[in-house]
Amino acid sequence: PTSLDLAVVGGDGIGPEVVAEGLRVLRTVTQAEGVQVRTTDYALGAQRWHATGETLTDADLEALRGHDAILLGAIGDPSVPSGVLERGVLLPLRFALDHCVNLRPSTLYPGAQSPLDLPRVAPDGFDFVVVREGTEGPYVGNGGALRVGTPHEIATEVSVNTAFGVERVVRDAFARAQARPRRKLTLVHKHNVLVHAGHLWRRTVEAVAPEFPEVTVDYLHVDAATIFLTTDPARFDVIVTDNLFGDILTDLAAAVSGGIGLAASGNIDPSRTNPSMFEPVHGSAPDIAGQGKADPTAAILSVALLLRHVGLVQAAERVEAAVLADLTERGAAARSTPGSTPRSTQQVGEAITARLA
Amino acid sequence: PTSLDLAVVGGDGIGPEVVAEGLRVLRTVTQAEGVQVRTTDYALGAQRWHATGETLTDADLEALRGHDAILLGAIGDPSVPSGVLERGVLLPLRFALDHCVNLRPSTLYPGAQSPLDLPRVAPDGFDFVVVREGTEGPYVGNGGALRVGTPHEIATEVSVNTAFGVERVVRDAFARAQARPRRKLTLVHKHNVLVHAGHLWRRTVEAVAPEFPEVTVDYLHVDAATIFLTTDPARFDVIVTDNLFGDILTDLAAAVSGGIGLAASGNIDPSRTNPSMFEPVHGSAPDIAGQGKADPTAAILSVALLLRHVGLVQAAERVEAAVLADLTERGAAARSTPGSTPRSTQQVGEAITARLA
Ligand SMILES: CC(C)[C@H](C(=O)O)[C@@H](O)C(=O)O
Ligand SMILES: CC(C)[C@H](C(=O)O)[C@@H](O)C(=O)O
Repeated sequence: PTSLDLAVVGGDGIGPEVVAEGLRVLRTVTQAEGVQVRTTDYALGAQRWHATGETLTDADLEALRGHDAILLGAIGDPSVPSGVLERGVLLPLRFALDHCVNLRPSTLYPGAQSPLDLPRVAPDGFDFVVVREGTEGPYVGNGGALRVGTPHEIATEVSVNTAFGVERVVRDAFARAQARPRRKLTLVHKHNVLVHAGHLWRRTVEAVAPEFPEVTVDYLHVDAATIFLTTDPARFDVIVTDNLFGDILTDLAAAVSGGIGLAASGNIDPSRTNPSMFEPVHGSAPDIAGQGKADPTAAILSVALLLRHVGLVQAAERVEAAVLADLTERGAAARSTPGSTPRSTQQVGEAITARLA
Repeated sequence: PTSLDLAVVGGDGIGPEVVAEGLRVLRTVTQAEGVQVRTTDYALGAQRWHATGETLTDADLEALRGHDAILLGAIGDPSVPSGVLERGVLLPLRFALDHCVNLRPSTLYPGAQSPLDLPRVAPDGFDFVVVREGTEGPYVGNGGALRVGTPHEIATEVSVNTAFGVERVVRDAFARAQARPRRKLTLVHKHNVLVHAGHLWRRTVEAVAPEFPEVTVDYLHVDAATIFLTTDPARFDVIVTDNLFGDILTDLAAAVSGGIGLAASGNIDPSRTNPSMFEPVHGSAPDIAGQGKADPTAAILSVALLLRHVGLVQAAERVEAAVLADLTERGAAARSTPGSTPRSTQQVGEAITARLA
């Protein structure tokens, strides 16, 4: 492509700060390739809700659909009742734009501050990707409550899973596994308890597997998967799992690979009917918002996922290489000068941009 | 008590092996206190199912209700379709006997093989307990599937949560927090997405809190909780959470505290209407069954929980002290003679028993 028409949703808390650095990097790397970038800001999140009572309108969605891709910072603020923005902005975006593949890579970068005893647990590092289903499961908002506030209250949450919804994400995960050197796919679920949903997932993996004969498949219950993520993360290559399990596992994966400040994600519509949306896995972190303390690396790596998705593969690789170089140096610096002040959000963005100019 | 009438369910895989060592310890420690122990074995699990097609009958339940407590090894075998024994034996036991409190302590023992970089992540160790709800949530078996095996299949799983069910476990968790030195309770849920169930849990904690003014309360989303369990496990004292989140978090907690081979649990009916049931958190591990390789420590620590529950507090403390001494020596031994053969199931049981004689 020679042009890129981007929707930008800074959102709440540290969202706008990290997105600004993501855009700095994106502009630099696309300029070098002669790609015209146009961005349109969308005011979604807490401020808009306080001012207008609106979350995500039909007009917003209509406008967003016109872009090539969406870059999102973070949605969520303690001043808004829990669930309102999540279920009013973020999840409706994922659902309405059919982002069935929530792609979350986990790579151990050099110098990463993993809580694991790496020399013992993962001496050769690790590099896996979680394909989290993004439009079904317990996230569908299909639940309710009766006799609220009384001793007889009952509250339900329904996980909805369809063959259509599971198959497309399983197929995407197999294709990703096929394209990776190790060609390994791990299904994570809890089919010994959640038998209906679990068996649908299992049968779907079994049904699609013959199309990818080179991919090795195994299965873990979600509880066991958390054990392996800490004791042997290198055993994973591609993980495919449902929306809620994927939410949990990818925060854990981010932690073991050096922190939520490095974890990028793509909310992808593989059919390319709708624009895909790229966002750091971290939240809006209101406690450090506006202080220039947030690490924009996750947002910048999300930009790399975006670039790859829209076909600017070389630009994506350059961004990833720049981040890798920055982390390598940062790790080395941290080791040689312990206690040195961490860089500001902008300084990190500028350091990575400088490697691309 | 001067007598103890115990139901014993060895179950599948390594279950009978580890339970045998648990009983060895239990017999020794109770004998020293002059407590008469009677045990009755119940054949539940894969063998019974293969032979008779039965899982848990009304007659089994009726008989089990007559005991003071139940000691269980593990249920589950790959020769039985996934879910049959879990939803036919283990979960019906927990549900029918109203085991609403699934108690799972996590202590970092000396020499424990934690995957964490402990000197950095938890220099002073950690010691917390998860109070997992045991009779509700997505474990209720309230789901179904339509058009199974077709491209139009839909499968649902319903999480059912009641004020009655949530309040009793929240109250139990507060009481446990109150009795611990740090007096801290963390509610873990996902109330920004699972709004109905999540808000019921949150309101219940808020409603019970004034009865325990000395207990500090905080809240974490389940995804964030997995991060803290790896980056700062010492922040936790008592965690209260739902059945599924508790399942996931306690496997992770077991991993970071040195492995599933040390994790004990109690399925407790706080009203004492039904016998409570004590079992290691680990599964039946069919791959190592019958080889004397399984670590019986989790089963032995489950015996300690059992003894405390039935009022034999001193015996419980003696067992815990013996395990601690054994682990301390084992850790030291492992450090001084790396590569030394690990002890057999029976050797571990005998070593701990020897400290109690
Ligand atoms: C904010 C929240 C709704 C969201 C989710 O649960 O998907 C977040 O945790 C994430 O992982 O992107
Ligand atoms: C075997 C399985 C049904 C069980 C559960 O999910 O509760 C196990 O994982 C546990 O934690 O005791």
